[in-house]
Amino acid sequence: MQWVKVLGGVVGAAALLGLGIIVGHFAIPKGADSPAPSASASQDLDLEILKTVIEQLDANRIRENLRELSKEPHLATSPRDEALVQLLLQRWQDPESGLDSARTTEYEVLLSFPSEEQPNRVDVVNSTGAILFSCRHSEENLTGEQGGPNVVPPYAAYAPPGTPQGPLVYANQGSEEDFKELQNKGVKLQDSIVLTRYGGVGRGAKAVNAAKYGVIGVLVYTDPKDINDGKSLPNETFPHSWCLPPSGVERGSYFEYFGDPLTPYLPAMPSSFRLNSDNASGFPPIPIQPIGFEDAQVLLCNLGGNLAPADWQGGLGCDYNLGPGFRSNGTFPEDSQVNVSVHNRLELRNSSNVLGIIRGAVEPDRYVLYGNHRDSWVHGAVDPSTGTAVLLELSRVLGTLLKKGTWRPRRSIVFASWGAEEFGLIGSTEFTEEFFSKLQERAVAYINVDISVFANATLRVQGTPPIQSVVFSAAKQISAPGSSGLSIYDNWIRYYNRSSSVYGLVPSVGTLGAGSDYAPFIHFLGISSMDIAYTYDRSKTSARIYPTYHTAFDTFDYVNKFLDPGFTSHQAVARTAGSVLLRLSDSLFLPLNVSDYSETLRSFLQAAENLRVPLEQHNISLGPLVTAVEKFEGAATSLNQRIATLQKGTSDPLQVRMINDQLMLLERTFLNSQAFPEERYYSHVLWAPRTGSVATFPGLSNAYSQAESTGHEPAAWAEVQRQLSIVVAALEGAAATLRPVADL
Amino acid sequence: MQWVKVLGGVVGAAALLGLGIIVGHFAIPKGADSPAPSASASQDLDLEILKTVIEQLDANRIRENLRELSKEPHLATSPRDEALVQLLLQRWQDPESGLDSARTTEYEVLLSFPSEEQPNRVDVVNSTGAILFSCRHSEENLTGEQGGPNVVPPYAAYAPPGTPQGPLVYANQGSEEDFKELQNKGVKLQDSIVLTRYGGVGRGAKAVNAAKYGVIGVLVYTDPKDINDGKSLPNETFPHSWCLPPSGVERGSYFEYFGDPLTPYLPAMPSSFRLNSDNASGFPPIPIQPIGFEDAQVLLCNLGGNLAPADWQGGLGCDYNLGPGFRSNGTFPEDSQVNVSVHNRLELRNSSNVLGIIRGAVEPDRYVLYGNHRDSWVHGAVDPSTGTAVLLELSRVLGTLLKKGTWRPRRSIVFASWGAEEFGLIGSTEFTEEFFSKLQERAVAYINVDISVFANATLRVQGTPPIQSVVFSAAKQISAPGSSGLSIYDNWIRYYNRSSSVYGLVPSVGTLGAGSDYAPFIHFLGISSMDIAYTYDRSKTSARIYPTYHTAFDTFDYVNKFLDPGFTSHQAVARTAGSVLLRLSDSLFLPLNVSDYSETLRSFLQAAENLRVPLEQHNISLGPLVTAVEKFEGAATSLNQRIATLQKGTSDPLQVRMINDQLMLLERTFLNSQAFPEERYYSHVLWAPRTGSVATFPGLSNAYSQAESTGHEPAAWAEVQRQLSIVVAALEGAAATLRPVADL
Repeated sequence: MQWVKVLGGVVGAAALLGLGIIVGHFAIPKGADSPAPSASASQDLDLEILKTVIEQLDANRIRENLRELSKEPHLATSPRDEALVQLLLQRWQDPESGLDSARTTEYEVLLSFPSEEQPNRVDVVNSTGAILFSCRHSEENLTGEQGGPNVVPPYAAYAPPGTPQGPLVYANQGSEEDFKELQNKGVKLQDSIVLTRYGGVGRGAKAVNAAKYGVIGVLVYTDPKDINDGKSLPNETFPHSWCLPPSGVERGSYFEYFGDPLTPYLPAMPSSFRLNSDNASGFPPIPIQPIGFEDAQVLLCNLGGNLAPADWQGGLGCDYNLGPGFRSNGTFPEDSQVNVSVHNRLELRNSSNVLGIIRGAVEPDRYVLYGNHRDSWVHGAVDPSTGTAVLLELSRVLGTLLKKGTWRPRRSIVFASWGAEEFGLIGSTEFTEEFFSKLQERAVAYINVDISVFANATLRVQGTPPIQSVVFSAAKQISAPGSSGLSIYDNWIRYYNRSSSVYGLVPSVGTLGAGSDYAPFIHFLGISSMDIAYTYDRSKTSARIYPTYHTAFDTFDYVNKFLDPGFTSHQAVARTAGSVLLRLSDSLFLPLNVSDYSETLRSFLQAAENLRVPLEQHNISLGPLVTAVEKFEGAATSLNQRIATLQKGTSDPLQVRMINDQLMLLERTFLNSQAFPEERYYSHVLWAPRTGSVATFPGLSNAYSQAESTGHEPAAWAEVQRQLSIVVAALEGAAATLRPVADL
Repeated sequence: MQWVKVLGGVVGAAALLGLGIIVGHFAIPKGADSPAPSASASQDLDLEILKTVIEQLDANRIRENLRELSKEPHLATSPRDEALVQLLLQRWQDPESGLDSARTTEYEVLLSFPSEEQPNRVDVVNSTGAILFSCRHSEENLTGEQGGPNVVPPYAAYAPPGTPQGPLVYANQGSEEDFKELQNKGVKLQDSIVLTRYGGVGRGAKAVNAAKYGVIGVLVYTDPKDINDGKSLPNETFPHSWCLPPSGVERGSYFEYFGDPLTPYLPAMPSSFRLNSDNASGFPPIPIQPIGFEDAQVLLCNLGGNLAPADWQGGLGCDYNLGPGFRSNGTFPEDSQVNVSVHNRLELRNSSNVLGIIRGAVEPDRYVLYGNHRDSWVHGAVDPSTGTAVLLELSRVLGTLLKKGTWRPRRSIVFASWGAEEFGLIGSTEFTEEFFSKLQERAVAYINVDISVFANATLRVQGTPPIQSVVFSAAKQISAPGSSGLSIYDNWIRYYNRSSSVYGLVPSVGTLGAGSDYAPFIHFLGISSMDIAYTYDRSKTSARIYPTYHTAFDTFDYVNKFLDPGFTSHQAVARTAGSVLLRLSDSLFLPLNVSDYSETLRSFLQAAENLRVPLEQHNISLGPLVTAVEKFEGAATSLNQRIATLQKGTSDPLQVRMINDQLMLLERTFLNSQAFPEERYYSHVLWAPRTGSVATFPGLSNAYSQAESTGHEPAAWAEVQRQLSIVVAALEGAAATLRPVADL
C-alpha cells in the first residue's frame, strides 16, 4: 500500500439505497423453492449461496494464509515473490477449491534498489571530513526477523544516486508552504540538506519541493508524535506494543506517477518501446534517504538556528530548531555538516501478475474484478498480506462451491494478485494497459482489498458513489466482530458518518486517491471501484497509519498479537467484500445505484456556486453546469424508476442487459482523455487530483486557483472556462447514456 | 462533399465473405411460415421485407426530392438551409411515412463568408497601380441560376483577409515538391503571388506550403485538362455537356482540420469554451482566392520566365511558364503585378443537424446510423442533394412500413442530416462530440451517402474491412442499372477489382480518408463506417471529380440531363445502401466480418517487412508485430467458427448479444488517444493519415519516413519504436476482445 492512500481517508460523498433493507444476519428469508443453480437468463443472486459463502469464510484459515504469505520478505520480483506467484497459481488451480483457470502475466518493469555493495549512508562529518556520527544502515533485529539478506535496507525507491553534503535544515513535512516559510524566515536553503517528517505531502513531493529552493539532499523520518501517539521508548514500542520502534524506517516509492516509469500507456512487454531512463519523468530530482526517529533525534535535537513554529514540533523530546547547522553546546561542532550517500540503482525486472477466473454462467463477458497486490517491502504481513490472506480465503470458498457444482456466478469473476505495487501500482497499471479495450467494454466493477486490517474498530470503504448501495446492503447483513451485537453497518456508522440529503445519517464512504491498485481502474479506465478494510477508532489513536507500515517490524506476530488476534476483523472484511463481490456477480440487475452520483454532483455544484461572482466577472456562467447537473439527476431518477418497474414484471434478458449496460458504463462517461493532458492516466473529470482549494470539480477547482494566483491572466481564465465546458459535456453525456436508449 | 474525399479513391484492402452466397434477385427463398414481425429475441433479417423495401425505392420520387432540395442555393446556415431543416423534420414526423421521432440539434459554429460590401478581387495592375485586368467576381449566369443574392461568390472559406500584391509565379498544384522545384530552378518566391491548379494536395495545404517560401498570396483554379478531359470552349461545356464552363469556380473550405474550429473535442454549444479565433489553428496563413480557368488563362498564358516542366502543363491552350512576372510581348507590361484582395469574415452561426430514429424492437440500444450533410455551396444538386434525395426516399419507405405496423427493425436506426459539412464536417463532428459516450457504447456502424451519383458506371464503396461482406451481400442481390442484366456486384467487379488472397477476384473497397461525414465516426470514435455512391468509368474520363463540383453550375438540370437522367443510379445506390442498412439493423448476428481485417493487416505487415533490415539496424524488431497479426488472425477465425456453430443451433439471446458486442466493438479497439497527439481527432491506429511512403501502419510509416529524413536521430528512431509498440498493443488488444470472453 502506498502512502498516498492514507490521504484518501474517509471523506467525500456517500449515500444509502433504501433504508428499508432489513438489518441483521440474512433476515431476508429465502424460499424453499429456490431453483437449483442453472444458466437460466434470469439467474439472480441466491441468498442461500450468499449465506453459505459468508459462513464458510474462516478466520483461522485467513490466519494460516497470513502466516504463510508473510513468512519471508517478498519484495517485488524477489525469489520469494516468485514463490508466492506459484503459491497463488497452485491455490487457484486446485482441483477441489480452485477457479476455472489461472495464469500469470509478466511485465518487464523498471524498479529501483539500493546497492548491495555500497550501502546508503547518512553521516555527520566535521569540517575536516571526519565522521562524527552515522545513522543505522538497517533496523534493529528485535524479533530475529529484521536481519538477513532478504530484508532490504531502508531506502527511497527511485531516488537518484549522489553524495551531497551540507548544513542541515529542518523543513517540517517538506511541503511548498514549509519551504516558503523557511525562506521567509531567512533560513538559507541553497546547498543545504533538509530533514523532513513523513506526512502532509507525498514522499516524492518533498524532494521536488526542496530542489526548487536549491536544497541538495533530503532526509525523511517518522516522528513518534505522528505515528506512536507520542511513544518513543524501546520498552513501549514493538514488540511490547504496536508502536514503531526507534530504529524503524518507512520505505516507499518516491516515483510521482504510477505504472511502469518507462512505458506510460503501453504494457511493459519486453519488446515494448521504453523511454530512456534519463528522460523518464517523475523521479525525485535530488538524493533522498529515510531514517529512523532514533537517528532523527540525534540530528534534530542538535540543530541550531531559531526555534521552529509550534506546529512543526514533534515527539522527540526536545525543541526542534530550524538550523541551518548544529547548535553550540550540542553533540557536534557547529560547523559540522550532514553527508547523504545514496547508491540506488534502476533495474529492469520481470514482475508477475497472477490472474484467475470463474466463468460466468449467463453473462461470461461481464467481469467483476477483485484484486490485491502481492509484493511487500519486507515481510509485509499487514501490507499487503492481510489483503492477500483474505483474497485466498474468499477464492477458496467460492472455488469449492464451484468445483462441487453448487454454484456458478451469473457474471465472470476475475481474481488478481498484482506485482510491484509498492513501486507505483505497476502490475495493475500494466494490466489495465494490456487489456484496456476488453476491460473498457466489459468490466462491471473493481474491488480492491489491499491492507484488509489497519485496526479493529470499524469498516472503512473508499469508492465511487454507485458502489455505496451495494456496500451498505452487504454491511447490513453481517455481524460486526466483537460483542456489540451490531451489524457491520451499524458499527460503521458510529465511527464514520455523514448526513446525506437523500438518506439521512449514513456511514461515510471515502473517495479514491491513488494509494492502491484501484487507481488505474478508476482514473484511467473509468471502472467503478472500491477499497475495503477494517480500521481505527480515531478517538483512540492519531497514528498516521499503523505504526510499523513499510518497516521490517510489519510481521505475522505483529498482526497476530496486536492488530487482530482473533482474525475477526479479517473475517469481517472477507465477508463484506465477499458479499459485495457476489452481489455484483450474481444479481440480475447490477446493484450499482447511479443516482447516488447526484449527491456528489450537488456538493461539487454547491462549492462552485461560491465562485459564481468571480466567474461572472470573467464572463463565465455556471448556468450550463446547473442545467447539466439537473439533467443528470432527472435521468438517473427515471432510470431507477424504470428498473423498479422492470423488477416487478418478468425479466426480458435483453432488457435487463440493456439496463445493466447503462449502469455499468456510466462511470466510463466521465472520462475525457483531453481534460488533463499533463496528468498521466488521469482522465476521470470528477476524481482527478484536486490541488485547488475549492471542493468542486477538480479541473475547475485547479484552473480557478491557478487563475486567481496568476494575477488574472486571460489564458488562465480561458482554462477555467475550458474545464467548466469539459465537466458540462461529461455530465450531459452521462445523462444521455442514462436516458431511455431510443430517446434522441 | 469535401475535396479530400476524392483522394480516398478506390484503393485499399477488401474481401468477400462466402462466395457461396447466391447471386441474383432475392434468390434465397423465404419460407411461407415466416413469423410475423414481433419483438422476439430471435428476430432476424426478413428477406420479404428486404425485397419490399428494395422494390419500393422509387427513382421518380428520388428525382422529385432532388428537384426540391436543389431548388435554391442552401449554403450552411442560410435561410434555405434552415427551410430544408424544416422539410426534413416534416418528412420524418409525417404520420404515415415518418419515423418514431425526429428533432434538431443546434451548434454555434465558426464559419467563413466573403464580405457582401467588399467583394474579393483579383486584378492585374501596372507599375502605377492602374488596373489592367480584373478576374470575374462571379460565375457567368448561363442558366438563370447563377445570379441572385443567394449565390455565394467564389471564395476560399477560412482564408484570412488581406490585399497582397506581387509578381505572379506558376506553382503547379502547390505541393511541397512543387515549391521545392521552383526554388531549385531559382524562381523567386519571396513576396510573390502564386497561381496553382486544384488537385494533388488539399486546398489549405497550397497556402501552407506557399507561405513557407515567403509567398504572400495564392490563386487556385481548375485546369480543363484535370476536369474536362481537355474541353474548355463555351459550346462544349455546360449547359451543352457535363463539362465545367470557363467561368466556373470551385469553392471550398481551406480549414486543415475538421469540426468546429473553435471547439475541438467539445460540442459547440453556445456556452462552450471557445478558442480565440486569433489562436485557432488550421486556417490558411495567407490570403488565397479561387478563380475560373477563363481568368486563369489570361494570367497563365501571359506569364514570363522559363517554361514549366511537362507535367505542369495543362489544357489552357498555351505554354505554361513559371514567371515570376509577365512575359514581354504579352497582354500586360512585364512589370505588372497581381493584386489579390480577400475580405472574408469569420462568423459564429447556428447550424442544425436533423436526427430521426426508428426504435429497435429487440435491441433498441444498438444504433445503425445513416447520414448525409444537407448544406451545399450553391444549389448543390449533386453535392450533397443526390445523397439527401436518396436518404429521404429510404426513410420514406422504411417509415411507411413502420407506420403500417408491417415492420420494426431489431436494432434502432438513426437517420441524420448534418449541417455545415462543407466548412469541415462540422455538424457530424459536433454530433460525435456531444454523444461520444452513447455512440462509443452503442453504435453498430455508420453508413454515409454523400454524393450518391458521380456518374452512371458502377458502385463505389469506401469503408473499413468488416463492412465488406455486408456490402457484397447487398450488391449481389440487386440488379445494376442498364441493360447488362448484371448484379451491382458483377458490374462493380468489372470496373474496380483486386485479387484477394482469401476470396480471389473481388470488387475493391476503398479506404476512408476525411472527405465526408464518416471521418469523425471512424477516426474519432472507431465506429465501422462506409461511404456508398455510383461513379465513373475511368476509361471514359480522367476528370478529377464531376466537373461542376462546388460551382454554381451544380444544378438539378445538370443531374437530370447529364449525370443520371433516369435516376436509376440513384435508385441503385438507394437499394444498396438500404439493403446494407437493413442487414445491419435486422440480422440476428451482425453482418460484420471481423476476419476481413486480416487481409489489411497482412498487407500492412508485408509492407513493413520491407523495412526489416533498416529497423534491425536500429534494434527494432518486427517479431512482436508478426506475432500480434497472427494472434489477431487466429482469434478472428475462431470467432467466425463459433458464430457458424451458434448459427446452426438455437440462439440464446445473451450469447448472440455477446458475440455481436465483440463484432461491434472490434473497431473501437484500434483507437489509441495517445498515438497521434498532433492530429486532431485521429486516433485509429490503422487509418490515421499516412504521409510516409511505405504502405504500412500509418504511425509506423510516418515515423519511419521522418527518421529516414532527419538523418537518423535517436529520438526519431525512438518514435518509430513507439509507433510500432502502439500498433502491437492495439492488435494484441483487438485479438483479446475477439477471443472467448472467459479466456484469461
